[in-house]
Amino acid sequence: MTLRFAILGAGRIGQVHARAVASTPGARLVAIADPVAAAAEKLRAAYGCDVRTIEQIEASDDVDAVVICTPTDTHADLIERFCRAGKAVFCEKPIDLSLPRVAACLKVVQETNGKLMVGFNRRFDPDFMAVKAAIDAGKVGAVEMVTITSRDPGAPPHDYITRSGGMFRDMTIHDFDMARWLLGEEVESVFASASVLTDAKIGELGDFDSANVILRTASGKQAIITNTRRASYGYDQRIEVLGSKGMAAAENHGENRIVLADADGFHSAPLLNFFMTRYVAAYANEIASFIAAVTEGAATPTTGEDGLRALALAEAALKSVAEGRLVKVSEVL
Amino acid sequence: MTLRFAILGAGRIGQVHARAVASTPGARLVAIADPVAAAAEKLRAAYGCDVRTIEQIEASDDVDAVVICTPTDTHADLIERFCRAGKAVFCEKPIDLSLPRVAACLKVVQETNGKLMVGFNRRFDPDFMAVKAAIDAGKVGAVEMVTITSRDPGAPPHDYITRSGGMFRDMTIHDFDMARWLLGEEVESVFASASVLTDAKIGELGDFDSANVILRTASGKQAIITNTRRASYGYDQRIEVLGSKGMAAAENHGENRIVLADADGFHSAPLLNFFMTRYVAAYANEIASFIAAVTEGAATPTTGEDGLRALALAEAALKSVAEGRLVKVSEVL
Amino acid sequence: MTLRFAILGAGRIGQVHARAVASTPGARLVAIADPVAAAAEKLRAAYGCDVRTIEQIEASDDVDAVVICTPTDTHADLIERFCRAGKAVFCEKPIDLSLPRVAACLKVVQETNGKLMVGFNRRFDPDFMAVKAAIDAGKVGAVEMVTITSRDPGAPPHDYITRSGGMFRDMTIHDFDMARWLLGEEVESVFASASVLTDAKIGELGDFDSANVILRTASGKQAIITNTRRASYGYDQRIEVLGSKGMAAAENHGENRIVLADADGFHSAPLLNFFMTRYVAAYANEIASFIAAVTEGAATPTTGEDGLRALALAEAALKSVAEGRLVKVSEVL
Amino acid sequence: MTLRFAILGAGRIGQVHARAVASTPGARLVAIADPVAAAAEKLRAAYGCDVRTIEQIEASDDVDAVVICTPTDTHADLIERFCRAGKAVFCEKPIDLSLPRVAACLKVVQETNGKLMVGFNRRFDPDFMAVKAAIDAGKVGAVEMVTITSRDPGAPPHDYITRSGGMFRDMTIHDFDMARWLLGEEVESVFASASVLTDAKIGELGDFDSANVILRTASGKQAIITNTRRASYGYDQRIEVLGSKGMAAAENHGENRIVLADADGFHSAPLLNFFMTRYVAAYANEIASFIAAVTEGAATPTTGEDGLRALALAEAALKSVAEGRLVKVSEVL
Repeated sequence: MTLRFAILGAGRIGQVHARAVASTPGARLVAIADPVAAAAEKLRAAYGCDVRTIEQIEASDDVDAVVICTPTDTHADLIERFCRAGKAVFCEKPIDLSLPRVAACLKVVQETNGKLMVGFNRRFDPDFMAVKAAIDAGKVGAVEMVTITSRDPGAPPHDYITRSGGMFRDMTIHDFDMARWLLGEEVESVFASASVLTDAKIGELGDFDSANVILRTASGKQAIITNTRRASYGYDQRIEVLGSKGMAAAENHGENRIVLADADGFHSAPLLNFFMTRYVAAYANEIASFIAAVTEGAATPTTGEDGLRALALAEAALKSVAEGRLVKVSEVL
Repeated sequence: MTLRFAILGAGRIGQVHARAVASTPGARLVAIADPVAAAAEKLRAAYGCDVRTIEQIEASDDVDAVVICTPTDTHADLIERFCRAGKAVFCEKPIDLSLPRVAACLKVVQETNGKLMVGFNRRFDPDFMAVKAAIDAGKVGAVEMVTITSRDPGAPPHDYITRSGGMFRDMTIHDFDMARWLLGEEVESVFASASVLTDAKIGELGDFDSANVILRTASGKQAIITNTRRASYGYDQRIEVLGSKGMAAAENHGENRIVLADADGFHSAPLLNFFMTRYVAAYANEIASFIAAVTEGAATPTTGEDGLRALALAEAALKSVAEGRLVKVSEVL
Repeated sequence: MTLRFAILGAGRIGQVHARAVASTPGARLVAIADPVAAAAEKLRAAYGCDVRTIEQIEASDDVDAVVICTPTDTHADLIERFCRAGKAVFCEKPIDLSLPRVAACLKVVQETNGKLMVGFNRRFDPDFMAVKAAIDAGKVGAVEMVTITSRDPGAPPHDYITRSGGMFRDMTIHDFDMARWLLGEEVESVFASASVLTDAKIGELGDFDSANVILRTASGKQAIITNTRRASYGYDQRIEVLGSKGMAAAENHGENRIVLADADGFHSAPLLNFFMTRYVAAYANEIASFIAAVTEGAATPTTGEDGLRALALAEAALKSVAEGRLVKVSEVL
Repeated sequence: MTLRFAILGAGRIGQVHARAVASTPGARLVAIADPVAAAAEKLRAAYGCDVRTIEQIEASDDVDAVVICTPTDTHADLIERFCRAGKAVFCEKPIDLSLPRVAACLKVVQETNGKLMVGFNRRFDPDFMAVKAAIDAGKVGAVEMVTITSRDPGAPPHDYITRSGGMFRDMTIHDFDMARWLLGEEVESVFASASVLTDAKIGELGDFDSANVILRTASGKQAIITNTRRASYGYDQRIEVLGSKGMAAAENHGENRIVLADADGFHSAPLLNFFMTRYVAAYANEIASFIAAVTEGAATPTTGEDGLRALALAEAALKSVAEGRLVKVSEVL
């Protein structure tokens, strides 16, 4: 069986998924939709697919699955529409910036018996998968502490900061998902400490650029997330899991693996600077996992519930910063 | 000028300092005091010094400086007595487990114009000094985030846990001092999250074995400390400082620098397992710095104030755990 | 302009090049030839190209370039035929196992004004390219010493060992090419020391499995190559260039980038075990370079001359082992 | 039993050994001899020992062992004199620059039943000892290939180059000893390729500054040594042993273990630049091993035979360079 795809949204991330679909055996890119004709045309030319409207795709018999890469505020509506249309849905995170809206959307998914996967690409990074496999194989024993260092090379444009819902909902949300995945227990409380240290304008927009967050489960396991919007040396993405028997850690990806030595010492390249190059394998694995889940009638590896819970942690972190106190997840969810 | 020393307390750390004094040009070990005759005799035999009582040392004309390595509950008294006796004083941390007692002791130091150095050995570790030098040289720009990973290979005996004042006052106190030193600003608030994950008995004794602490200064700089009493792979001591221009990080010290490769991959040795081997150079540098400060009439590089402020952070962290909330340092100091 | 390709030989390496051609913008895979119908059919199914005979391809108007992936003893003939047919030719190394045969072939290439690129894939590895770029940018100063550690995870089948012309012509030939490329001067003399240490049968076949080779240029620059057919920890591929100002070194590629720590120490994965996974980027860059050279009418980055000279170094090394002496390259070329 | 020492020669290496003797339990520094009064006086002042002439030491009842740190051309005579005087002898390498003279000296050692240890300090480096222990524990299986990278940060003064007997006898001799120790079999043949690449004056003095040497045992095991007199990034001292089961490698020692990251990438310190700081632990272990061997009446871990055989490899390498050919060790020994 070949899974026939439509991509909704031909922007940066839409292009990533189009390439992933086109190069995956067992998948075929049938159609692309984008209000910007040039963007859609570019993908059509590259992959020989149709350009259709969202309505046309909704009604298409030759489309089994859609990948939603449109702006965030359209996600929940599109998920509902395409679940109702009986298509399998892969949606970029977040489902919505509002928790109640997400909950309502997931109700529709459930009622329609829809198949939904939310795009937490990092779970599909080969190194992070190897860390998870080491945990699952008992190599670190009982998980006790998760440490996530997640630093962007630079802040996004100011207008994006407002639209994105802020750092916790836009950037840390990936770390929240990783923490849940690695802890293996739901988070019970959140304390977050956020600062504006790199760009005062970000503060004026009501956001921050530097934060540490402590997550804690009922049994006392903890995760610490450290974020910044500005790491001069590149896109810093490390995770470390300490357990009763040992530790598993994933190291960064440099631009290359050469070392230069001279009278000043040893020098190696900065880190890969862009999430699309750093996570190129993760994006490919992610779509392949979606295809496998749909084709085999299995559960998707990341679900609407995962999307909801990661967003709830972001909400709790925001509340923690706003009120300067420890916040129970039950206060927001 | 040769600085003439007496060591008070011939236990484990007293032996470390005796060796440091004996091997430092410009210093001479004159006397040792310990109620356990065998312990004192061992050092006498090794270094050819006298065995004297504390009272005799207090009255000795041939002793310029003392190193206090006695149990914690005697530190403040001895500091006061030897400052009054006009001797320069090096005292192991902490000055006392009670903040008011520490404050009272420091008042005596001030009144007697005493010279006091408190033993925060990590500031004298060559790698940590190199990190600090890099900050001072502007290599990381303005400091924004300090990350301290500080994990002991195993918990101390249960009876020591009670006597020591618990993990924050005994173990984390070093990390609090490092954080103050690296942040370059005083800490304003503390949030701590502590768990019992490695040994339930530790919990029954009123202590914990796993913790994350977020420290924050008035300008929003932050430090995160992550502790455990059990790291299977050795004594894990890392610091990382992120600034506007870059990052400086100090790596761990393994038992050796060899790598074995076989069909299972690449293998290297666990970390040095004991603070005395890991920080052997730090202990030597520390005493040398004390000797230099006394000899040159300069300020000691670590002071009673440093001892007070690190203890205040421990108190604030304890309060944070007890009350489940963010604590201002001004609440305890 | 789109460059239209035929692939001759649908074996392992033919599949690699087919994928590279199919995924390169500006190239199109038109036809595949292989006497084994199933092998050809597999590529036809995957890429939608024709299956043709070599004679048909020779006569095809819709083929601009061929990639020769057939057995070694057919290479020289095919190069000559397709140069005469006016096609651009990419040929896997070696051109032939006989130096005179290679020289005769290159004469035909020259007479037909043919465009020939020989497949030394390692020159297109991103890390090795970064080392070369560092040299060219003056970062190591004048090159003095090149050290190449090149170890296979396991020996090829015994029947391949005979067909391949032995370790120097089959395996070390890549290192000879790298050495020439990095030294930036032609090699004048060769000393090789070869042993049979991993499998006595290899010795019975007249080959060896372990060798060190010293190459030397007229100005006294040197390269050292160390080879084995059996590295338990994977495919070990390191280069190091020492110059007057410093050193540039390319490190190995592990199966992943995670580290596991436990009471036995720190553990990381073995090296990528297979040349096709280790050099996946190199193979893609290689074909892209060929396409660019043909399309732009530029010289190919690796030439028939490179193929000839690397083979000459292999011949000199063989003579050195056979006669137990230093051999001048002029003795064989 | 306390071993009572005299040091002959109060230069740089004499000072190293004096410190080692003075700080080793079970040893006592009794006397120092040096024709330069100021040099002897410096050690007397530091360690409270006597200053005596060599003749006086020879006749001293209170001296059990001597450490010979005088110029090379006096070594053999002093070994003979002190063996005849019944003292245990530790002598810095080399015993002499002439193989027959060494052989004659060792005959005297044998006839007098003398106890002689030759100073190959690297065998006592903790990392290299760990590599050897890994081999002995079977971790690498049967040893096949030894790779020694041994690069000095800078050439010695020109006048020393002549006196020292040249690079092979002065610098590579340590690598020859390491190769013998790690191979676990005697070397049968030597090929050396030497160049003058860093300083033409060194060539005018009849020496060279860059070399590669291949050593080979009867069973075909090989060692490769790569040397230069100028490594801009410090004192590069690596060994790597490949065997049937795996590899053991010892890594370099940097000036510290910090990493700086910025927009240009990651930076770490140059290597320790001086053999005395790099091998500080080795020198201490070496003297401790000598003391233990003498005290316990055991064989010394390095012997006159080791000194002879390492020198023979240097002679063979010199002959190989002079005659441009492979040299059997039996030609020189």
